Parts: sequence; structure tokens; C-alpha cells
Amino acid sequence: MNRVSDLFNIKYPVIQGGMIWCSGWELASAVSNAGGLGLIGSGSMYPEVLRDHIRKCKQATDKPFGVNVPLLYPQTDDHIQVILEEGIKIVFTSAGNPAKYTAFLKEQGIIVAHVVANKKFALKAVEAGVDALVVEGFEAGGHDGLEETTTLVLVPMIRELVSVPLISAGGIASGKAMFAAMALGADGVQIGSAFAASAESSGHPAFKEKIVQAGDGATRLMMKKLIPVRLLKNTFFEQVQQAENRGAGKEELSELLGRGRAKKGMFEGDTEEGELEIGQVAGLIREVKPVNRIVEAIMDDFRETHLRMNRIGNEI
Amino acid sequence: MNRVSDLFNIKYPVIQGGMIWCSGWELASAVSNAGGLGLIGSGSMYPEVLRDHIRKCKQATDKPFGVNVPLLYPQTDDHIQVILEEGIKIVFTSAGNPAKYTAFLKEQGIIVAHVVANKKFALKAVEAGVDALVVEGFEAGGHDGLEETTTLVLVPMIRELVSVPLISAGGIASGKAMFAAMALGADGVQIGSAFAASAESSGHPAFKEKIVQAGDGATRLMMKKLIPVRLLKNTFFEQVQQAENRGAGKEELSELLGRGRAKKGMFEGDTEEGELEIGQVAGLIREVKPVNRIVEAIMDDFRETHLRMNRIGNEI
Repeated sequence: MNRVSDLFNIKYPVIQGGMIWCSGWELASAVSNAGGLGLIGSGSMYPEVLRDHIRKCKQATDKPFGVNVPLLYPQTDDHIQVILEEGIKIVFTSAGNPAKYTAFLKEQGIIVAHVVANKKFALKAVEAGVDALVVEGFEAGGHDGLEETTTLVLVPMIRELVSVPLISAGGIASGKAMFAAMALGADGVQIGSAFAASAESSGHPAFKEKIVQAGDGATRLMMKKLIPVRLLKNTFFEQVQQAENRGAGKEELSELLGRGRAKKGMFEGDTEEGELEIGQVAGLIREVKPVNRIVEAIMDDFRETHLRMNRIGNEI
Repeated sequence: MNRVSDLFNIKYPVIQGGMIWCSGWELASAVSNAGGLGLIGSGSMYPEVLRDHIRKCKQATDKPFGVNVPLLYPQTDDHIQVILEEGIKIVFTSAGNPAKYTAFLKEQGIIVAHVVANKKFALKAVEAGVDALVVEGFEAGGHDGLEETTTLVLVPMIRELVSVPLISAGGIASGKAMFAAMALGADGVQIGSAFAASAESSGHPAFKEKIVQAGDGATRLMMKKLIPVRLLKNTFFEQVQQAENRGAGKEELSELLGRGRAKKGMFEGDTEEGELEIGQVAGLIREVKPVNRIVEAIMDDFRETHLRMNRIGNEI
């Protein structure tokens, strides 16, 4: 009775974000077992590591799960090859041109969703034949669109434009926000930050601790001249900010970022010198919890919000 | 039965933003007559002009209306004086310290709401004794908070913190968005952009035309080193962007802005050289309409969303 749940054959229209350094088989299988859709994040994996995670995920759940493939890495072809060999049936693509792989993946019987942050790419993805769109607002962690359009504005903007199922991403870690996103026209939600901070996330405990400690204004969209990315404030963030305030260009920012900075922060736990990617909604996340409790809390809050809004709607 | 409607004695919990150059007596009285709360925006008015607008507004409506007072202008004391002399009973303050006038206004029997964009000022305003808070997200037009927190994240963040009625601002021009904001914990909404583009707005027709033509990514938060302000893209915007990309500081930006730039754009209709302040939601506004049709459309959409979400909530 819900287009996202039906498409992926899951209990709740709740998709876990396929985040680098956090979304291994432990997280993906836990989300699928909890009634959502788990996604292995291939962006930070060598192809054989991805294969290993897929195999372990199959052992850990008999529920559907998928793989997220960011299209900006050089090894994408190898990732796709592993996905086909391992019989994966759900692929989320992001950060690239949806025209490149969608038709090919669909021919292999794979359900394809693509992440967009503007109208142009939403139309392009639908033309390419995607089964669903992830509509990602400015408040999301990691790489965001240049337009900076927030979930509140972006979801209805894309809803008016296309008829495929929409999955709202960015700013969602509660049932209230899920309910709000669906009121705006989404059929389901994608949740990153809350799962990055979960017990089953492969992010470093020190990174998770930084997420739950994050308050008001703890993140900022940076590196707009390179690729916009939402970062948690730390020493590295301050270096980027100083460089940008001086007017630093693409090359300087790229050099400052260097290589392995995201791994250093999120996986190895150097929370000052590393790059920490997280959404604004970190400010609403209070503790590291197991995935099943996160999903239950979201669905309980969704049901409470439904009852509350039913009352409020009748009074207005 | 709604805390915002009850507080201001209005039919719908819909407050019009008190915007410079757009919110004169024509707009404020039209919104109040349509069942919302109209606000005269004093920020762009000399005290005697404000007095004239208040008197005309009283002639044009027998419903409650108020005055918005941005606390960053030198003439604030004079504005407050006029407000008292003219017997205004509702004041919205913004862009400044709520501790400065709230207690004094309350002693005069005035209902006071204050606009905030972060936790710190929300607490400060509640301590100062405000009757309601306007919680303004990053997507809003005009001056925004430095934290860049979006409505989706900010409303629940402030809802957890305080018990006064909350009015959600930023990104709202439809009943769907109003319903979403209330699901997040708001008691009502403040709407700016949609009313800036209304027939009764005193904005220049060329400015209104630019609003309804605005698409995806047509606005951007600029001047963060001076006072962050969301601008519609035009020639002036490009000058600011070039200066900021070079690393321009506060002084250079202040000089570039000069004096009278907002009047030039929004009131005199020089849509290239003038400063055009509008929210991201401009991308969802399609035509210049009279206020009563805007309010009706929002409330119809709210009711439809209520019915739709009641169905969806039951299915999940």
C-alpha cells in the first residue's frame, strides 16, 4: 500500500543511506532485519571488499538489501561487475550521471534508484528509466547539491515534476520528520546520520560520539568550489573555513583535503584532523543505539505524529 | 483550539511576514481580512510613514494586525513610540536582542513574538518573556541565521527546548508545507515570499515578476561575513558572488551593498542592480494572486494534505 515499501518488498518505507565508512554489511543487514532497506555503501570499498560485504550481508539477513554506488569514483565499473556477479537486485546510484548505468542495470533485472538534488537531474534520471528517486535536501550530510535547496522546498518541487516514487533524504531522523516529508509528497525516506551513529555502523566510536555531541549549527556545507560537502566542525573544518574565507580556489581546497581524509576521520577516529561527513540532523541525535531501536523509535514517533496531526487537522 | 490562532484571535494560524518594501497596510489588512495575521513591516519606514500605514490599516480591517520591528535599525525607539501611540497590540521583533524591548512592550499590554534561528536566542527570547517564537529556517528570504539550520531540523530542535507557541517560517507557501511544519512541532506558520508576490504587496511589479519566474536554485544565502541574507540571483547578486569568491571581507561587502540597494530592487523595480530578498520557496510560486486567493489555496491544500496523510498514516 506504499509505493516504496512495495517496490523494495520491505515493511517500512525507510531506506538507510549508503554512506562511506559507515555502511558495511553489519549496518545494512541490521536495517533490513528491522524492516527497512539496508544499503551497503560501496564508495569506500575496493571491489573485493564490496564482494565480501555482500556475501556477509546475505548470511546476516534473508530480507532485501541493496548497494549504493557513487558514480564519482574510478572503480565504478568494477563495483557494478561485483554487484552483477553477486546477484544484487537493488542499486542506488548517486553523485553522477544517471544515464550512464541505469538502462544497463535495468536490463539485468535490477531495481534502480538515483539520488538527485535538483529538477534537471530528476528529469534526467526519470528519462534514464529509474524506478525511484532519492530527493536530497541541503541539510543532508556528505555531498550535497550546488543549489542548496532544502528538503521542505525540494520534495514538492520534484513531486510536481515526476511520477516515480520519491524517497526524501536530508534532515530526517524521526517519525515527525518522516511524516513531514510524506506530507510534502515523498513516498518514503532515506536516513543517513541516525544510522551513521548506530551501534552497527562501522564508523569509529569517536566519530559516533562527535555526532551525538553535536548541537546547533555543528555542521556546515563547505568546499563549494570543489564538491559541496556537509562537514562536522573540527580542526580540519576550521582549516577549510579559513582557506575559503581567504578566497581559496579548487586546487588549494583539493590539496588541503588530500587523500584519505574521510577514512582518517570517520573510520580511524581522528575526529580533529579527519573529514567528518554528517547531516544537520546530528543536532537531534542524542545517543548511539542499535538499529532496531532506532527504527522502532522512528515508527512509534510516526504513529504518534499521525494521531496528533489527525487531531490538529480536524481543529483547523 | 490552536495556540497561535487563540493568541492573536485570528481564524487560521497563518502569519504574514513583515517584510521591508512589501508589507504596507494594503498587504497587512488583506491578510488579516483573509483570516490570517497581517504585519506591517516597519523596517523600511520612517516613523511617520509607519504611523500612516497603521492608521490606514485600521481603516481597512477590523481584524487584529500587528507591526514587525527589526531591531537592527537606528530608529527602533521611534518606531516603538509610534506603535504605543497608535495602540498597536501585537508586535513581532526580529534581528536583534529580544531582551531589549520585550518586558517593556509586555508591560504596555502588547503581545510579543520574536524571530529566532538558533537555540541560544530561542532561550533568550523565552527568558525575556515573549508570547510566541517565530522559528526561521535557512530557506527563508532576507536575513537568516549564521547556523544555516533548515526548517525541518530547526522546528523540532526548538520544540524540544521551549513550551511557548512556535510559528515556523522559511520554505512555506503551501498547505502541504504548513502541515509538515505542524507535524514537526510548530503551532502555526509565517509566510513571506508568497505574500511578497501577492497583488497587495507594495513590492514593485517587476520584483513580483522575478519571484514568479524564479526556478530551482534561484536564490542563495550571501553576505555571510556581513549579515547573511538570501538573495534572488541578478546582476547585483553576481557582483556579490564574485567579491565573495575572491575572499572579500566585511568592509568590501558593505561598500558593494551601499545604501538604498533593497529599495532600488524591491520597491523601485530595478531587478538587476537592486537587492532582491526572497525565500527558496519562490521556486514554487507561479503567479501574482490576491491575498484572499493565496490564503484559500493554502487552507484547501492543508485540508487535502490532512486527508491524504490520514490515509497514508493508516497504511503504514
